[in-house]
Amino acid sequence: MHPYHMTKEEREIKDKEVMKDILKKGKYIIVAMSRNNEPYLVTLSYGYDEFSNVLYFHTGNKGLKLDFLRKNPAVCGTIIEDLGYQKDECAHAYRSLVLWGKITIVEDLQEKKQGMEVLLHHLEEHPGPIHDRTLNSNASYNAVAVLKMEIDHMTGKQGQ
Amino acid sequence: MHPYHMTKEEREIKDKEVMKDILKKGKYIIVAMSRNNEPYLVTLSYGYDEFSNVLYFHTGNKGLKLDFLRKNPAVCGTIIEDLGYQKDECAHAYRSLVLWGKITIVEDLQEKKQGMEVLLHHLEEHPGPIHDRTLNSNASYNAVAVLKMEIDHMTGKQGQ
Repeated sequence: MHPYHMTKEEREIKDKEVMKDILKKGKYIIVAMSRNNEPYLVTLSYGYDEFSNVLYFHTGNKGLKLDFLRKNPAVCGTIIEDLGYQKDECAHAYRSLVLWGKITIVEDLQEKKQGMEVLLHHLEEHPGPIHDRTLNSNASYNAVAVLKMEIDHMTGKQGQ
Repeated sequence: MHPYHMTKEEREIKDKEVMKDILKKGKYIIVAMSRNNEPYLVTLSYGYDEFSNVLYFHTGNKGLKLDFLRKNPAVCGTIIEDLGYQKDECAHAYRSLVLWGKITIVEDLQEKKQGMEVLLHHLEEHPGPIHDRTLNSNASYNAVAVLKMEIDHMTGKQGQ
């Protein structure tokens, strides 16, 4: 980073309400995992449960990320609010969070249902029809893995 | 993922030209690292050198990511072209790449200069003024660390 660039303050977001606002508005998170010191990442749509400070995801029952998470549930994730590249400034405007925590696979049917409720209400304005179309029986939950990220701590930054 | 959702094909991008297009259009990459099996990630503006199939970044001379990269240069990164959440579809439209490779710190002044050229030409339409303003002496390169990611392999996906 050249001297001109360095004098631009890249401000830390300390306000918990601002951080919560980013969590509520975000649609997806990039999650970094580690297995035998090998890095891997995935991008996942999420639902934020602000009362328990937990993120929920849904995914298929198989896949590389589940193997990583079973070996090591520790994750580091980021939610990025992209406000656009600033031409002629060599800078990008954004708000972002980095979150540390662990991701576990939800096994309990009641919690799977709750996780899917949180997810649909987070992502959709009118979750009812989707819910009725796709989650209309207990058996419909067998095909979906619900993951839960318990947030241990997080930091926020904004550029520009 | 519920049954309805699973029938939607999430298509792999196999066309190398499409992958290159995503690399050329992208402005930033999220990079996952691993140190002692601890995951960490950062978001970095990048420049893509298509002739050597390398990404260049600039950063300060200190920071957690440099410590991670010195301990373990292996990284996994993602570039996301966000095409928007699809309301009432429980789906997000996107094109994305996942890249594996290693990131090293460029020590050679000539390569640092070349890396900054690649970066500025990737990010800016008119890189000249910024270059003249900020990289006008060899000394100006002392304050900046230039990182290089050699791409080992990558995969592409698109949703919707």
